[in-house]
Amino acid sequence: MNKQEYIIRQIARTNKKGFENYVVTRIWHLLDDLDIKFMTQQYVKRPSGFALTDLYFPQFQLHIEIDEPFHKHYKVEDDERELDIINAIDHELERIKVIDDIVVLHKRIERLVVKIKSYKKAHKQKGKFKEWNPEKEFDLSHLKKKGSFNLEDNAAFRTIKDACNFFGHHYKSCQIALITNKLNPKQHLWFPKFYKNQDWDNQMSSDGKRITEKCNNPDKRQKHFDRITKKPLDRVTFPRVKDNLGFVMYKFKGIFRPNLTESNLDQIIYDRITCEVKIV
Amino acid sequence: MNKQEYIIRQIARTNKKGFENYVVTRIWHLLDDLDIKFMTQQYVKRPSGFALTDLYFPQFQLHIEIDEPFHKHYKVEDDERELDIINAIDHELERIKVIDDIVVLHKRIERLVVKIKSYKKAHKQKGKFKEWNPEKEFDLSHLKKKGSFNLEDNAAFRTIKDACNFFGHHYKSCQIALITNKLNPKQHLWFPKFYKNQDWDNQMSSDGKRITEKCNNPDKRQKHFDRITKKPLDRVTFPRVKDNLGFVMYKFKGIFRPNLTESNLDQIIYDRITCEVKIV
Repeated sequence: MNKQEYIIRQIARTNKKGFENYVVTRIWHLLDDLDIKFMTQQYVKRPSGFALTDLYFPQFQLHIEIDEPFHKHYKVEDDERELDIINAIDHELERIKVIDDIVVLHKRIERLVVKIKSYKKAHKQKGKFKEWNPEKEFDLSHLKKKGSFNLEDNAAFRTIKDACNFFGHHYKSCQIALITNKLNPKQHLWFPKFYKNQDWDNQMSSDGKRITEKCNNPDKRQKHFDRITKKPLDRVTFPRVKDNLGFVMYKFKGIFRPNLTESNLDQIIYDRITCEVKIV
Repeated sequence: MNKQEYIIRQIARTNKKGFENYVVTRIWHLLDDLDIKFMTQQYVKRPSGFALTDLYFPQFQLHIEIDEPFHKHYKVEDDERELDIINAIDHELERIKVIDDIVVLHKRIERLVVKIKSYKKAHKQKGKFKEWNPEKEFDLSHLKKKGSFNLEDNAAFRTIKDACNFFGHHYKSCQIALITNKLNPKQHLWFPKFYKNQDWDNQMSSDGKRITEKCNNPDKRQKHFDRITKKPLDRVTFPRVKDNLGFVMYKFKGIFRPNLTESNLDQIIYDRITCEVKIV
């Protein structure tokens, strides 16, 4: 998807919401900078659960909330476990309060636009501004030099195949959820789904530190349990999530180790042992 | 309705249409001028019938059409006779062709914005730029000095009462469709509906020069016909139309005279005799 298509799709998500569409398009058009990425209606983690921020600039970890006179609260759908929810606890949050005076509203938006431009300038001066490039979004080759990546790097792959090949495989296609890490044979690469599916009902705790795995298929349960207990390998974990446009990706969430003490035939517990994975 | 509400509502009409919303909001936000009025999806008369232009700047009689790769053609609904359709034959039409290159698209929009700004400047220099003022839109007092108005003036009233009082009555409310013109007792003021309603099915020809009036109520038909033939007064005609946000107004369409030669009990014909009405 190129920038144009991406932008149109992001903005289309604000349609049916008059003020939100107006404020989001005004910020975007006055910002007028194709190097800056934005997302609309981004799910974020809050102490009280999940929330949506109306506009998110990931390069600056800046969220905008548009406070409308009659603001609708969004229902988080049942498939929330599939969502790409951002941990935004240390992110900045700006509010644009919509009032019944368009001149004042325009001034508030202008101030915000000036602020975002100044952020870009400051990031550039510090050499930490990365231009938005949709084609390189899933290109993690720059991380190879570093020799590892961690949760902060927001590493994700579009497909399981891409992830496997990054870790030393040579697949043309691959749909397996558990596979050896060629870079470290003592680990598995794991691509779990955190929503109920055919054989499994897996869940990640809201703090991201524990995964509970349930096997719904009685024919497989014992065999699976025996395999884990016999050879409890650490799992480099990339859950399947959907970005806010509905595109699937596999996003790194840490390395998890089977917790045999707390596991039983009904459910297997995995605890996060590190947020970093070596890629050499 | 203030400007903010008006703007949000006009833009909301472009929602669900990704590219149209993007281009319209970009033109509007970059134009950044609250003295300029715009309308979205304005019905215009074409030689072949009616059409919608995506964006219309009435102060400059400039229409913008956004040519999308997959442009949907709008179905004109059955209630088209109630629409405020603009005769746009001598208006300017600009096309913004949406292509799959956002940098080029942005340049095309920028050129258009520069053009509109230059129009405003030129109009101002000639002293013919009237700032957009929603509160004065239906205030026709400036026409009183001129002593008359014509089709070009786009004169319209929000209510029948306002129109009657402009022509010398002193009503607090009024719903009558035919009433004496106090400024010229040889004329009637007429507020017809050009869509089928309880007793009537009236229609205006597409060139705006002839009205055909049919009475659907057999009990009233003869009496109505006798009244017209006995006293065929000219009619200062303000059909009921809806603007593109659905608000009713009564818009001047000329003075019509009963054409007794061509009329009969089934239908009465009125022909436009002048496009101008005296208001002194």
